[in-house]
Amino acid sequence: MATTTGTTAVTRIPAEVLRAFARDVLVSRGVPEDDATTAADVLVSSDLRAVESHGVPRLVSYVNGLEEGRINPTPTITVVRETACTATVDGDRGLGLVVGPRANEIAMAKAEDAGTGWVVVRNSNHYGIAGYYVLRAVERGLIGWSMTNSSAIQAPLWGAEAQLGSNPIAIGFPGGEEGPVVVDMATSVVSHGKLEIAARAGEPIPHGWAIDADGQPTHDPEAVRAGGALLPLGGTKEQGGHKGYALAAAVDIFTGVLSGAAWGPFTPRFTRPPQPGGDRSGVGVGHLFAAMRVDAFTDPDEFRGDLDEWIRTLRATRPQAGSPAVLVPGDPERAAEADRGVNGIPLSEPVLASLREVAARTGVPFD
Amino acid sequence: MATTTGTTAVTRIPAEVLRAFARDVLVSRGVPEDDATTAADVLVSSDLRAVESHGVPRLVSYVNGLEEGRINPTPTITVVRETACTATVDGDRGLGLVVGPRANEIAMAKAEDAGTGWVVVRNSNHYGIAGYYVLRAVERGLIGWSMTNSSAIQAPLWGAEAQLGSNPIAIGFPGGEEGPVVVDMATSVVSHGKLEIAARAGEPIPHGWAIDADGQPTHDPEAVRAGGALLPLGGTKEQGGHKGYALAAAVDIFTGVLSGAAWGPFTPRFTRPPQPGGDRSGVGVGHLFAAMRVDAFTDPDEFRGDLDEWIRTLRATRPQAGSPAVLVPGDPERAAEADRGVNGIPLSEPVLASLREVAARTGVPFD
Repeated sequence: MATTTGTTAVTRIPAEVLRAFARDVLVSRGVPEDDATTAADVLVSSDLRAVESHGVPRLVSYVNGLEEGRINPTPTITVVRETACTATVDGDRGLGLVVGPRANEIAMAKAEDAGTGWVVVRNSNHYGIAGYYVLRAVERGLIGWSMTNSSAIQAPLWGAEAQLGSNPIAIGFPGGEEGPVVVDMATSVVSHGKLEIAARAGEPIPHGWAIDADGQPTHDPEAVRAGGALLPLGGTKEQGGHKGYALAAAVDIFTGVLSGAAWGPFTPRFTRPPQPGGDRSGVGVGHLFAAMRVDAFTDPDEFRGDLDEWIRTLRATRPQAGSPAVLVPGDPERAAEADRGVNGIPLSEPVLASLREVAARTGVPFD
Repeated sequence: MATTTGTTAVTRIPAEVLRAFARDVLVSRGVPEDDATTAADVLVSSDLRAVESHGVPRLVSYVNGLEEGRINPTPTITVVRETACTATVDGDRGLGLVVGPRANEIAMAKAEDAGTGWVVVRNSNHYGIAGYYVLRAVERGLIGWSMTNSSAIQAPLWGAEAQLGSNPIAIGFPGGEEGPVVVDMATSVVSHGKLEIAARAGEPIPHGWAIDADGQPTHDPEAVRAGGALLPLGGTKEQGGHKGYALAAAVDIFTGVLSGAAWGPFTPRFTRPPQPGGDRSGVGVGHLFAAMRVDAFTDPDEFRGDLDEWIRTLRATRPQAGSPAVLVPGDPERAAEADRGVNGIPLSEPVLASLREVAARTGVPFD
């Protein structure tokens, strides 16, 4: 069903069709069926939750990585150090979409045994949306955490060049009747996906999102691709840009430095062969997963009831004149998921073209 | 030594003088000497690190709370639930400056035994600067976390009224030659202290910091005190205000809902008697402290060396034209501490007057 939104034609494709396609494509490139099923689920979860830049539009990059040998289709994922409540995992250059769920499972199992589980991961790759992992924890009644570093696209405050990734943080709290609260945010002002959307629409980007290759403020949505950088959340010092930078730094230190993954400017680019790092930079992309058992801290029924009340209190905030009603973190993604689960996932013509190209290359049927 | 900065006369007072004064004042109001010594150390640490709004200028509020019976000078601080790596602490209405260090000690001891320690606290009070606690962890070679909720002063995105505190987050990483990396940030664009400084100087505040009691953007530094609210980090939706709000929400859920403390608009005001909360709101102010042993994840020497390299890499970022050199989180506070440790803490005339008033009221000499 082709519909038109603004100037961009989109076609709605059912989630199960995309899931099966992504799974079969990964299997065709040597990924075992179980792992491919998990990876496809992570990928399409991103499309369902309307974080399009992290979903099936990226399938072609994963296929490229597998074909070029940068991504290992059959990794031996190992725990290299652990305590009852912590672990460090080596992903053996596997798909982040496979290494991530495995490490997240370790964090959740440790939380169920010990109260909390904190797991850092090195030698992995792009892992999809951070929110996917905390939703798995929430389904099991756990509080979930997830972070990842990524290739440099964000400038530190006052910097004229990208030194850190968009370095997202996700935290999920299991709720009662009102559902969970789910934080899932890049630590840059926006993700690069927002610039790609503006570029496709031929529109300028707002002041405060990005700088160009000379470190100057820019309205050009192509400027980051051309050597510029996203700004940290907050933007300028006056508006708290040191805080977004500090969060991006903390994510990089947890996921890169602590895990033994590459970090900062040495983090491998998703779409390109790895670059030589500094003497001390580690291997691959790094993640952190954590889970906390609610009953390690309080009565779970009380917690769910109190969180319901918290959600209702925040939603009942008097809104600013002309503003929508106040939401709680996770509401927009949940609304998108409810719509797209029923009506299918809207894909633009360029994304459909990239999927047809993948279909032709791998022999997996699409359309 | 009175000096003049801009239009405001300041006097430099040695840290040890302020520490002894604050200790003796608290002892005069029934706080045991050991606890008063700890509390004074937390308080003056804030002044040393140039987070003036959380230091000795607040001494009078603590004294008021003790005199009015809202703060318990001799709390029985108890662990009400625990596992090897978690605990929930009831602060028995004690000074946050006493309850906080005690709970932080529990988190650090659990980390040293089990790998990580995660402790939530209820029934406490204002605990000073979040950064104090993570610095104690860093001194012991641990990664430290600290969060607290506080009385409502921050609007959620799109909200016209304050529903959340400034809800800070601190994270400290123990470094090698280059020293630690220390994140310590309110999740609002700025703390209210910045508005107080503007009000004293008779200057307008920048767009994007606050709204007035009608929920309208304002340049008036008195607007928040008059019923307005600070905006979340990011400010508007376009600039990522939903992210600052999401962080403030996560802090409130961890420190309030999970611990059994009051939360959101029910969090007790520091300077006023408690207000009746909702049916489900808990008791007092809530905190979270956590510590992680580096060797639970990686070799500590390697971590320190890699973090040194990370710090040098970030500091070597090409700066924007006309900008200062790129710093790492914690650098400004460390520079302030180095200066103030030697040259004394600059206090303005109104702060000195409030300390003299406390001196007169308690009979503890000052000046």
